[in-house]
Amino acid sequence: MSVCPFDHPVLGGLLGDEEVAGYFSVEAEVKVMLAFEAALASAEAKAGLIPGKVAAAIVDAIAAFKPNVDRLRVAVSTDGVVVPELVQQLRKAVGGKAASHVHFGATSQDVIDSGVMLRLKPVLAIVEQRLAAFLGALDSLRKRDGERPLMAATRMQPAIPIRAGNRIESWRGPSERNLERLRTWMVDGLVLQFGGAAGTLDKLGDKASEVRTALARELGLADRPQWHSQRDRIAELASVLSLISGSFGKFGQDIALMALADDGIELAGGGGSSAMPHKQNPVSAEVLVTLARFNAAQLAGMHGALVHEQERSGAAWTLEWMILPQMIVATATATRLANELAANIRRLGCD
Amino acid sequence: MSVCPFDHPVLGGLLGDEEVAGYFSVEAEVKVMLAFEAALASAEAKAGLIPGKVAAAIVDAIAAFKPNVDRLRVAVSTDGVVVPELVQQLRKAVGGKAASHVHFGATSQDVIDSGVMLRLKPVLAIVEQRLAAFLGALDSLRKRDGERPLMAATRMQPAIPIRAGNRIESWRGPSERNLERLRTWMVDGLVLQFGGAAGTLDKLGDKASEVRTALARELGLADRPQWHSQRDRIAELASVLSLISGSFGKFGQDIALMALADDGIELAGGGGSSAMPHKQNPVSAEVLVTLARFNAAQLAGMHGALVHEQERSGAAWTLEWMILPQMIVATATATRLANELAANIRRLGCD
Amino acid sequence: MSVCPFDHPVLGGLLGDEEVAGYFSVEAEVKVMLAFEAALASAEAKAGLIPGKVAAAIVDAIAAFKPNVDRLRVAVSTDGVVVPELVQQLRKAVGGKAASHVHFGATSQDVIDSGVMLRLKPVLAIVEQRLAAFLGALDSLRKRDGERPLMAATRMQPAIPIRAGNRIESWRGPSERNLERLRTWMVDGLVLQFGGAAGTLDKLGDKASEVRTALARELGLADRPQWHSQRDRIAELASVLSLISGSFGKFGQDIALMALADDGIELAGGGGSSAMPHKQNPVSAEVLVTLARFNAAQLAGMHGALVHEQERSGAAWTLEWMILPQMIVATATATRLANELAANIRRLGCD
Amino acid sequence: MSVCPFDHPVLGGLLGDEEVAGYFSVEAEVKVMLAFEAALASAEAKAGLIPGKVAAAIVDAIAAFKPNVDRLRVAVSTDGVVVPELVQQLRKAVGGKAASHVHFGATSQDVIDSGVMLRLKPVLAIVEQRLAAFLGALDSLRKRDGERPLMAATRMQPAIPIRAGNRIESWRGPSERNLERLRTWMVDGLVLQFGGAAGTLDKLGDKASEVRTALARELGLADRPQWHSQRDRIAELASVLSLISGSFGKFGQDIALMALADDGIELAGGGGSSAMPHKQNPVSAEVLVTLARFNAAQLAGMHGALVHEQERSGAAWTLEWMILPQMIVATATATRLANELAANIRRLGCD
Repeated sequence: MSVCPFDHPVLGGLLGDEEVAGYFSVEAEVKVMLAFEAALASAEAKAGLIPGKVAAAIVDAIAAFKPNVDRLRVAVSTDGVVVPELVQQLRKAVGGKAASHVHFGATSQDVIDSGVMLRLKPVLAIVEQRLAAFLGALDSLRKRDGERPLMAATRMQPAIPIRAGNRIESWRGPSERNLERLRTWMVDGLVLQFGGAAGTLDKLGDKASEVRTALARELGLADRPQWHSQRDRIAELASVLSLISGSFGKFGQDIALMALADDGIELAGGGGSSAMPHKQNPVSAEVLVTLARFNAAQLAGMHGALVHEQERSGAAWTLEWMILPQMIVATATATRLANELAANIRRLGCD
Repeated sequence: MSVCPFDHPVLGGLLGDEEVAGYFSVEAEVKVMLAFEAALASAEAKAGLIPGKVAAAIVDAIAAFKPNVDRLRVAVSTDGVVVPELVQQLRKAVGGKAASHVHFGATSQDVIDSGVMLRLKPVLAIVEQRLAAFLGALDSLRKRDGERPLMAATRMQPAIPIRAGNRIESWRGPSERNLERLRTWMVDGLVLQFGGAAGTLDKLGDKASEVRTALARELGLADRPQWHSQRDRIAELASVLSLISGSFGKFGQDIALMALADDGIELAGGGGSSAMPHKQNPVSAEVLVTLARFNAAQLAGMHGALVHEQERSGAAWTLEWMILPQMIVATATATRLANELAANIRRLGCD
Repeated sequence: MSVCPFDHPVLGGLLGDEEVAGYFSVEAEVKVMLAFEAALASAEAKAGLIPGKVAAAIVDAIAAFKPNVDRLRVAVSTDGVVVPELVQQLRKAVGGKAASHVHFGATSQDVIDSGVMLRLKPVLAIVEQRLAAFLGALDSLRKRDGERPLMAATRMQPAIPIRAGNRIESWRGPSERNLERLRTWMVDGLVLQFGGAAGTLDKLGDKASEVRTALARELGLADRPQWHSQRDRIAELASVLSLISGSFGKFGQDIALMALADDGIELAGGGGSSAMPHKQNPVSAEVLVTLARFNAAQLAGMHGALVHEQERSGAAWTLEWMILPQMIVATATATRLANELAANIRRLGCD
Repeated sequence: MSVCPFDHPVLGGLLGDEEVAGYFSVEAEVKVMLAFEAALASAEAKAGLIPGKVAAAIVDAIAAFKPNVDRLRVAVSTDGVVVPELVQQLRKAVGGKAASHVHFGATSQDVIDSGVMLRLKPVLAIVEQRLAAFLGALDSLRKRDGERPLMAATRMQPAIPIRAGNRIESWRGPSERNLERLRTWMVDGLVLQFGGAAGTLDKLGDKASEVRTALARELGLADRPQWHSQRDRIAELASVLSLISGSFGKFGQDIALMALADDGIELAGGGGSSAMPHKQNPVSAEVLVTLARFNAAQLAGMHGALVHEQERSGAAWTLEWMILPQMIVATATATRLANELAANIRRLGCD
């Protein structure tokens, strides 16, 4: 299927993102889940919970392991989550007595949520770097065109003359703060999830905290108590993503309005029309508006998922799976397009 | 990429739908767009706007035509829409003088919007048939278990005894009305879009209405004036889809609550847990809640896209592309799961 | 408090609606709830469930009854719903043996939901009449200015010349269909809610259906089986309201864009600025966009409330109370502003 | 009108908040706007932009000034914003030559946005204090009941035994982080808005920055460059509010589920039913879910308003007015109810 534009062989060219695509393949997902299982075995061996040899066998098996994706697909349709079948396949691959030590003390949510964090890390770094690049592009724009006159418009009416630099600043300020917000989240939000069946790491006894700390260090995530039913960090990330795309939406809307009124802008790189060859459509400006509105709507779903009942809500958790990856890619795409659009501004402000 | 669950090789097993998948491939999309172009050529030939031979050449070329999808992908990143490049490729395939007659008088939106309608037709028929099947399943359930006692619950508190049939009716009523709503929409909503560059069919002169009628007949869509910036039918469909999945959300929530309290239900087909082999998770019940909440959030986006400025809004239109297909598949999946869940109810009500 | 703009002594002048205000006072609410209780007593007397004298006493007491609103306020903070206290006050007012017959066989939801329907009837009639008036205003506009030239704009770019009448039609078509949708809903959706404690009218025995029919006739609502946990009609109404305001949002956006570009429009009645006395802000055009986006966001909440668990969900039901009245008034206001704006168009299209 | 529950004489008892009500009266709004104008006059006098005597006259007139609210209401219906009429009335009250110095160099948005900040300050302090109280209540609860056994539930199924303290922690963690988020916002977000007609403080010449700094100090807001079209701080606040209410939604949902299953909880203070006197409805638990879902839906609207075109968007700004105050009160109410509910837990966990 090609239901959503990010995954679409054609529309993906407009709305997807080649650079982040690698983190949204099944291979990438399986890789982080296996990384969790390997790190878990190592950490548990260090804590003396499982024999060192067993851990080594698990790590070795994982290095060579390729899951049967078709069977994962079938199993997820019943289990609602991929981990039980993945663990079963992995246990078979490990074989012998070591098999039963795979995934010891962990639960599906540990694997999935930590796996999301492991992929968020590099993807958010891309978004971060692009946001910084956008700020740089605006700085150059300001340097070049900042003193040009421009007619301010308030309430859809020409107001008084300002300078191009004033409008640039209205794009720059939010993006600068968004970059700060993103960085703050990357420090506070990229946390290990590890709690076992019901969050108490019941099978690990007095080694629970030691294993968790070692696991966090191994995976490069912050060591925090389990948060399987505390989804505030995830919803907060969604908010940051929507702030980023929303601020670009203003940028895109402003550019599109200037292009419409042929007022104070010269753009390169417009799109073609099948009916009117003379047109230069400000496609990326429009799509920035689209992505802003897309993420704003998604945010309602993500915050609704805060009502995560009891120790694990299949309903609320699955809703996150449906929305969060799309918000991430929408935001990554928005940062890509914002940079493209900034680069396509040949002149901002009047002569 | 596998960003959204419907397109995901693994999660698609839970949240996707094999039966509707065929309508959400690039091949299926290209097929309906080409069907539009072929029907357009025929209709224009009948009206004497292009030579019959030319139309035949176009139709023949289309029958053999396979687009270069990679180039479509590249072009859409600039043009914001696939049609200009597709038409160009098609013209090349047609060749000679006939080439210039391809897509005559039409615009991107005619091709895309009519193409959506052509795919909606069979997909909605699947949803319709499943909704009807669900009503049948509830009828059987009522026949078997309708007289069993059940404790009503109001405001999350046991209230007074009712019968299982009463609760079944609370699932049946909305679905019956939703089926009616869907059928009404399929009659009123499946309409041709044909307006040319700015909706006036300016190139067709006094043949405009004749061509539109012939085109509608050829494609099996209702013949209506162009609606390129009138998105109410599309937003109305989104509402109907959300009503369907929302009503199933209540069904799923009720079943999940009964399963939690172990109260008045016996279910088959529960999902497994990686940490607790004894559990039987009511996965499809939970996912029905997920899909209801997913569609409810999307609906805000789709209705926001009603603010479709001027003769064509790239921003609002692209937003529909991002959301509507997902709502359709989410709804199709919900109808599939609702039937599965109904079939898995071994007993409703107490002994 | 003046938290929401509709109720705000100042902002209400912009966003509220004097004509519908009367239906959104506590007095109006109490009046319909009492109308329900009076009609119930009469219907039950006719069916021989309560003595005719008792019914007469109840009806008489209701005619003179004024609730203690402060105590209603206190009670609702505990009960979550106003009816228990209202019924208690009413029983005291009725006094004697008749008191215990007040509200016989009914529950809070019967009173509240039927009461909403009783107020929706006249309010939706106002919306209907204004929608019809808007269509008339557009017809006049078309007659006067329809042939004037206008530059079409697609994807925020000038496209090809059209006529003012073409753009008018893009506003007219959706509103015409919305009027039809609203009328259909007024026929199908204005239904009595009457089910008793858990929807089974358990206390009415074999008179249940007779009483319900009489009650419906008395109140002028359609006689349908109870729907206390079947919220599809309510969510459908919300969709219709959002379609209406969304279509006006396009109208407002188009006018605002024309005003911005000073392109093809002359408007009267613009708003003043505290800093720039020369400006004529297209305030009502902007506010139409606001109301469209407001309702679109609310719609997500209303459709989320379809997940109405078991026989009565305090959570989902209360969410409707928070949102639906606002959507109704937002839509009424939008119809008011759309008519004002249409009347303020001095010229549409170029000379 | 009583359209929204916060302002409703009856429903306000459930969904409103007496303590914050004072900040949502017209009087409170006018007061902060006048505080802005007085502080502006003083700051401009200090900078030598207006005579000290004039400033004193303005300040004195403001101290005695009572606006004609009816005329404000009428004016806002045309101007879309209350400030032009308020300033006119104020100028009349000041009289003489001083009149023309009122509001010098400022614009509507300066007054409104700074006024919002001035009211947010005390209101958020109330929310902050209640959040802290809630954390304290949970600490006491943990002390008293933390060691009691409880059956964990994952995916709506009993899982393994945990302790009451584990579930308490799942409520505590998010609220603790939300308190931190709120405090951070109160430091970074409570900023002066001051930019003049188009953000450039064009009338203040080289005194602009001096006046802004003095004005910020006078009003007790952070001194930052104007942000009239940079709405990220406002949208971020909305996110924080929704995180707060969303986390309480989980708390309420958990309690309601425990009450339903009569599992591990004893509650006081339930609500009554008009049909079933024996019931004790967990009304505040349900309403916490309602408020969570309400705010989640509103958040989509607030983030949509980030697309704030050009130097001032009437459409996007008005949308904030419609939503933000409601989100604030919904959040304040949620903090109130969460404390009430925590206090009503007589026992958490099993014996």
